[in-house]
Amino acid sequence: MSRIIPRASVDSFDGVADVIVCGFGGAGVCAALEAGDAGSSVLLFERFSAGGGSTEMSACEMYLGGSGGTSLQRDLGFEDSSENFHNYLMACLGDHADEDKVRAYVEGAAAHFDWMESQGVPYKRAYFDGRDVVALTGDSLQYTGNERVWPYTEASTPIPRGHLPADAGHDGGKVLMGVLKKNAAAHERIDIRCDARVQALIVDDAGAVCGVGVKIDNRVQYFFARQGVVLTAGGFIMNERMTRQHIAALDGFATRHGNPGDMGDGILLGVAAGGNAINMGEAFLCVAHYPPAQLTYGIFVNEQGQRFINEDSYLARMADAVLRQRNQRGFMFIDNRHFARPDYQELAEIVAVGETVEEVERDSGLPEGSLQHTVQVYNQYAAKGEDPLFHKAANWLQPFDTPPYALVDYSLPTLRPATFTLGGLDTLPTGEVLTADREIVPGLFAAGRTAAGIPRTSAGYASGMSVGDATFTGRRAGLRAAALPRRPDPS
Amino acid sequence: MSRIIPRASVDSFDGVADVIVCGFGGAGVCAALEAGDAGSSVLLFERFSAGGGSTEMSACEMYLGGSGGTSLQRDLGFEDSSENFHNYLMACLGDHADEDKVRAYVEGAAAHFDWMESQGVPYKRAYFDGRDVVALTGDSLQYTGNERVWPYTEASTPIPRGHLPADAGHDGGKVLMGVLKKNAAAHERIDIRCDARVQALIVDDAGAVCGVGVKIDNRVQYFFARQGVVLTAGGFIMNERMTRQHIAALDGFATRHGNPGDMGDGILLGVAAGGNAINMGEAFLCVAHYPPAQLTYGIFVNEQGQRFINEDSYLARMADAVLRQRNQRGFMFIDNRHFARPDYQELAEIVAVGETVEEVERDSGLPEGSLQHTVQVYNQYAAKGEDPLFHKAANWLQPFDTPPYALVDYSLPTLRPATFTLGGLDTLPTGEVLTADREIVPGLFAAGRTAAGIPRTSAGYASGMSVGDATFTGRRAGLRAAALPRRPDPS
Repeated sequence: MSRIIPRASVDSFDGVADVIVCGFGGAGVCAALEAGDAGSSVLLFERFSAGGGSTEMSACEMYLGGSGGTSLQRDLGFEDSSENFHNYLMACLGDHADEDKVRAYVEGAAAHFDWMESQGVPYKRAYFDGRDVVALTGDSLQYTGNERVWPYTEASTPIPRGHLPADAGHDGGKVLMGVLKKNAAAHERIDIRCDARVQALIVDDAGAVCGVGVKIDNRVQYFFARQGVVLTAGGFIMNERMTRQHIAALDGFATRHGNPGDMGDGILLGVAAGGNAINMGEAFLCVAHYPPAQLTYGIFVNEQGQRFINEDSYLARMADAVLRQRNQRGFMFIDNRHFARPDYQELAEIVAVGETVEEVERDSGLPEGSLQHTVQVYNQYAAKGEDPLFHKAANWLQPFDTPPYALVDYSLPTLRPATFTLGGLDTLPTGEVLTADREIVPGLFAAGRTAAGIPRTSAGYASGMSVGDATFTGRRAGLRAAALPRRPDPS
Repeated sequence: MSRIIPRASVDSFDGVADVIVCGFGGAGVCAALEAGDAGSSVLLFERFSAGGGSTEMSACEMYLGGSGGTSLQRDLGFEDSSENFHNYLMACLGDHADEDKVRAYVEGAAAHFDWMESQGVPYKRAYFDGRDVVALTGDSLQYTGNERVWPYTEASTPIPRGHLPADAGHDGGKVLMGVLKKNAAAHERIDIRCDARVQALIVDDAGAVCGVGVKIDNRVQYFFARQGVVLTAGGFIMNERMTRQHIAALDGFATRHGNPGDMGDGILLGVAAGGNAINMGEAFLCVAHYPPAQLTYGIFVNEQGQRFINEDSYLARMADAVLRQRNQRGFMFIDNRHFARPDYQELAEIVAVGETVEEVERDSGLPEGSLQHTVQVYNQYAAKGEDPLFHKAANWLQPFDTPPYALVDYSLPTLRPATFTLGGLDTLPTGEVLTADREIVPGLFAAGRTAAGIPRTSAGYASGMSVGDATFTGRRAGLRAAALPRRPDPS
């Protein structure tokens, strides 16, 4: 199968538009709306019978802040300087950060929220103060990452940045995509074609992308793009060959999380046209050791009975930490005062229960004395509100003193945690696709998980980074494509 | 800069050969010799004024075994079944393994040793029984990896597989490459061109690679390949843009290890022609906590005073383990009986010395009680010859009982450890370069660190895997290219 079609070999085109968008998820719909609003005609292709993508499947938190705060943050009394937001993201992303992208995102995130509201996405001026993955209270602002977690607290002031559609709970994606898809469908310059899978890029003699080959009604049709082609086809978590090649370590136990179209089509098309795929070995991974929030009082130990992380960490940082332990195994130790079943990890298993720590240690087969020592040290300092080893916040520190005690298996092979990919095409903040030499592939754009965007590691992830980035970069790519000069129509 | 030149745009060629090899290191010289021996005319281009590559800079251990044992292993009384070798490699490489390549390597490694001897590379029938990175005794066989280290001992029977040129110490590369370069220079069908940097691949209308553009005397010259082009230009450890893009975590502290030509040229050329670069985020990293071997009696702890690995591990596995600790910090605790300066880690720093463990713990700022507990548990079990936490082999277990005690800093930012890249083009065991869809790029081959070969992670590395793989895959690529039908000469 050839993913590249030379322009010269296309005798006639089945359609023409200024901008062609490939994929009708969060990134694609935003790209189409911006290009259309900028005056470009848009052809939007979607392989399935309806749009939505992984954005629609998500709770649709968006991780936003900076510029003094989004209007939602400010209305709720939270100030978030761009510097503070920048410092937080850079601390989270570390060596993986694309600082140019971080800067563009930090500077544009507050306006991005305004744009979402102007589109008609509903947000409620209400703040959820609890510790949960998604607020189920209808509130629209919450903490969703490691903002209050050491060592990030040393780099920035904690601010809630998770922006959630009003009263939607886990269905925020349906709300947000419902609004945006309706706007796209009603847009006079946007032509949406479903059941249309983009299979190839059309490239001219100069190496510029100027169209697509699309499978429609079991026939390949050719469409010419006067300005550019935007790839918004999601990540590659459903492509078994690619996950085996790039995130093999997760392949054995993790559960693929995404929509069935996350086949890497966009990445493969972009690479075939000269684009460079980067960060391909990184993936989001999730160990939801909360809610309920009370489980945060527990401590995690590895096979050696050692603690290895501050347990008030965000769920993806916890997963990354368990992944680094021998055999990817981690166990929560907790007492009867705080014991509960985790809401989202149905496969977590109780390993041992006992009236003493020694009994739990013995029954669970941990090395003799190891868990006892860990609990003894933890208790001793927790009583003083301190955690010198891992700096768990004082409000989550309580000595274990209420038997029975339990050890619960949160090992990755046990949990089969959800994962999705964080690698994709290298792009400029404008969405322009880059070669391995960081030169622009003319006429080609990528956004959302088809590109390597803001979120780059599980350890530095926060809920809302992917949808925030996908919708933001989709808009940027659509805008930039619509600003390019128009090529003459094919004769 | 364009890395691809359309065949149709080349008006005349400056030379023609059956097989063109790009890079005169270990992989390239082997590719040239095999192609030449098979009857093909060979043009070999080298960007520097003389060949050698990183292979020549190395001690030139080759990691070989299987087929009952190489002749060197068998002559020294070691039997190594292919199954045993296979099991060891698969245990080391884990999820990263390319099993097809492992199988080809295991089956061909013993014959590869015979080929090296037939070329004239000298080996001594003598076994070095110590624990060292490179035997300095002149012996040619030694353990070089994790063969005797848990958990690898559960997967395979320990066998020494490091094959070292006789009496060469650290200069084995000069010996081996000296022999092979001389053979290539004397070969009637091999034409070596130094000071000639391959800058572009020439690709015909069907996407087949049929030549190269080479900068010679400050002018680009064009050479036609009737059968194929073999990329053997090393890895990308000297390309700062690429290391920043792919192994950013190491960029801040590690020392680039390789030859100045490891600029990623081969990988970038291959990608431009449609090849797929994989495993790009992985790199060899080295914390040489031995020799002297007596340092193996020490234990390593992290910032929390916890042990985290069996200290009899190979140096690259140790580095991987330290990398996973907070702030990439690791410390060796040792008593006066076994204390020594490490031979190769000049930057290792003594943090604290004391008459008691408590004193060392306090002076080094480790959490109160943490080191004391770790040493107490270690001592208790070491006295019984056991290490229930990490399974260090019994012969390296001795209780710490001879003050003063010391803590020595082996943190990665302190050591600035050597690193080189383990990512490259995806290839078949024949060396044929593959696209992201795992289709062959016609006419294009890669070998050595330009390809993703046998060694894929630091944790699973053993000295000799890279030179073994580079020379082995170079031969395979040369052989396969020489077996292709010849295209007619350009008119």
